[in-house]
Amino acid sequence: MERAEVDVVVASTPVNVTYLSDFWSVSHWTRRSAQVFAVAARSSNRAVGLITPLGNADLVPVDAGRAPGFVESYDRFVFTAPRDGQAGLEPEEEQLLRLVAAHPSAERGAVEALAAAISRAAGPRGRVAVEYDGLLHGDHERLRSLLPEVRFVDGLPLLRATRTVKTAEEIRRLRRAAVISAEAFQKAAAATHVGDSEMDVQRRFHAALAAEDGMPFLTSITSGPRTALPNGQAGGRRLQQEDGIRFDGGCRYQHYASDIARMAAFGAYPAEHRARYHAVVNGLEAAVTMARAGVRAADVYNTAVEAVRRSGIAHYARSHCGHGIGIENYDAPSITPTSTDVLEAGMVICLETPYYEIGWGGVQAEDTFLVTDDGLEPFSATPPEPLTAGNA
Amino acid sequence: MERAEVDVVVASTPVNVTYLSDFWSVSHWTRRSAQVFAVAARSSNRAVGLITPLGNADLVPVDAGRAPGFVESYDRFVFTAPRDGQAGLEPEEEQLLRLVAAHPSAERGAVEALAAAISRAAGPRGRVAVEYDGLLHGDHERLRSLLPEVRFVDGLPLLRATRTVKTAEEIRRLRRAAVISAEAFQKAAAATHVGDSEMDVQRRFHAALAAEDGMPFLTSITSGPRTALPNGQAGGRRLQQEDGIRFDGGCRYQHYASDIARMAAFGAYPAEHRARYHAVVNGLEAAVTMARAGVRAADVYNTAVEAVRRSGIAHYARSHCGHGIGIENYDAPSITPTSTDVLEAGMVICLETPYYEIGWGGVQAEDTFLVTDDGLEPFSATPPEPLTAGNA
Repeated sequence: MERAEVDVVVASTPVNVTYLSDFWSVSHWTRRSAQVFAVAARSSNRAVGLITPLGNADLVPVDAGRAPGFVESYDRFVFTAPRDGQAGLEPEEEQLLRLVAAHPSAERGAVEALAAAISRAAGPRGRVAVEYDGLLHGDHERLRSLLPEVRFVDGLPLLRATRTVKTAEEIRRLRRAAVISAEAFQKAAAATHVGDSEMDVQRRFHAALAAEDGMPFLTSITSGPRTALPNGQAGGRRLQQEDGIRFDGGCRYQHYASDIARMAAFGAYPAEHRARYHAVVNGLEAAVTMARAGVRAADVYNTAVEAVRRSGIAHYARSHCGHGIGIENYDAPSITPTSTDVLEAGMVICLETPYYEIGWGGVQAEDTFLVTDDGLEPFSATPPEPLTAGNA
Repeated sequence: MERAEVDVVVASTPVNVTYLSDFWSVSHWTRRSAQVFAVAARSSNRAVGLITPLGNADLVPVDAGRAPGFVESYDRFVFTAPRDGQAGLEPEEEQLLRLVAAHPSAERGAVEALAAAISRAAGPRGRVAVEYDGLLHGDHERLRSLLPEVRFVDGLPLLRATRTVKTAEEIRRLRRAAVISAEAFQKAAAATHVGDSEMDVQRRFHAALAAEDGMPFLTSITSGPRTALPNGQAGGRRLQQEDGIRFDGGCRYQHYASDIARMAAFGAYPAEHRARYHAVVNGLEAAVTMARAGVRAADVYNTAVEAVRRSGIAHYARSHCGHGIGIENYDAPSITPTSTDVLEAGMVICLETPYYEIGWGGVQAEDTFLVTDDGLEPFSATPPEPLTAGNA
């Protein structure tokens, strides 16, 4: 915020509110019409304020180090107060009771509450970076009319830049999200036999996620020629002995995303498919070997693409070979030929070398890594051969 | 659209794009920065056009009756064409190949593609209802500068109004979503014993959803005094003999939402809790008995609240006692004391009578119904007593 010369940053989309505050508002995450804001002031020493409908106040973080600097609630919700006073209440109940007691008696809107919070934190003439994309139609104009002398700038670039290098807690969640996804698909593939449908594989994958507290949010499971569909959704197609099964996706774990890919196959998987699988795995491995803090993202891209071409897919082409990952599944950096990003220690990145040929099928390798000064630390590792389906 | 006197409706948020077109863009549903639009023209006889990144073109619906009127793709993505021409391709592969071949060679943005589609459908001076809340910052101004003579109005009210009465296919999905959720929580409760944690219940619930193709998206599972937290998230609290377990939430099934509530309890559930459970069930039943097409939503609310009060919670108060449900979990109508909505045949509604007392706990009954001329047709039914936990 000092570098960007702003006094206050306002997050307005679900990912950025949760990123800044660890407040996960269920209304915000499930409905575009919900208005929830996180307010970080340069003066407030990392404490983040929240504007929330009163009905989500029970989700405000309560633990030391996570509790917000302030909470402004709006809208109405009926909580009945304890008959016996506060004796014996748990900290989350005590906090909820405090928030209910502090709720303003006069009705006001979310934007009015936000304007009041900005004014307190930045003064009437502060410089405020607002993430505009979570505002509702008309809210931006309303905010400007309530704070006519505040200088507003777009907060999204600052939030995206801040999200790029991860904290230890983010790394822990991202690692767990990747491990859960890799293990869940391995379990699903092992339990899958010729004659099962793609939906059967997906059901097993989602059940295995659930057992480890992973929330499905991005699953593409395809088989045979359908593996050429980059985002293909599992359907009724029955698996055959020569099929490959392609998985691309992941889960959310404590709100953080994973995105990996795996191939599985039965015994009759054709030699050409297997050879091309080796080619894309070689591309991934070449990128993994050279990537570390200080390396240009464009060089990682070029290394991956050239290695796939040398390994047997001479016409291989690709718009990107990876991306950062965090609370959103596409964070900076962007691993493209024209990227100006440079890898930094503490980034978490997905590297991938998918190949999609319509009518023939697809092969893919994708894993997640922590960038360090010495190289990449893998959260998951693509096996040199496709997973063997049906070996459970 | 005729009543609203608009030539074109543009949907821009994930729920409304999928609602209008049945196109589920994974980029759109997972990232705020994705730009995907559905365009319905009054002149085009129900065929809906799509603007999508090329990388999501494999998800464009292909079946008769679901295929879009047109697809405008933007951005880049590498698909390799079949070596053997189109022989033996499946319809979804053929369509993808057609979309790749039609992709413009010159780069252009999503908003430019949208402007071109609007201009074709409405003419340069048409009246266009745009859902603004899915646009990115600056896109509205860009659209206006590209189409200076088009008259733009806010499309959200029209889309929300259209969504209120459901089609047969929507009713099928909503019914299945409710059934899956009710059965999954019943299974989870039956398998839960004293000493298990709330997280154990949630894991069982999510696994049971996965087995029936339900996607978790809204789960609140709490126990003991935590049942007073309306959206409380499952944690490590261990279940005790006198606990109630409160479930509120549901799943998505083929993109459509469910939202129901259930109580479960062990043998030592206190008499006062049980009595208050009966009170909220009575409130729900009173509302169910009188609701049908033509009844005012405010009267449904009043009937529910008064029945809870008469049944033993004299101080019962509540901001709403239900809401419509569809592809979003809060559709019209709104069952509140000040609602001007009137129930219509074909609406699907959730009715609920939750009670939250901090430090004591909560009890809740919520089910989902189809509104008909003769009354409400239940998709799920609250049992007269709490479910018996641990009886599996």
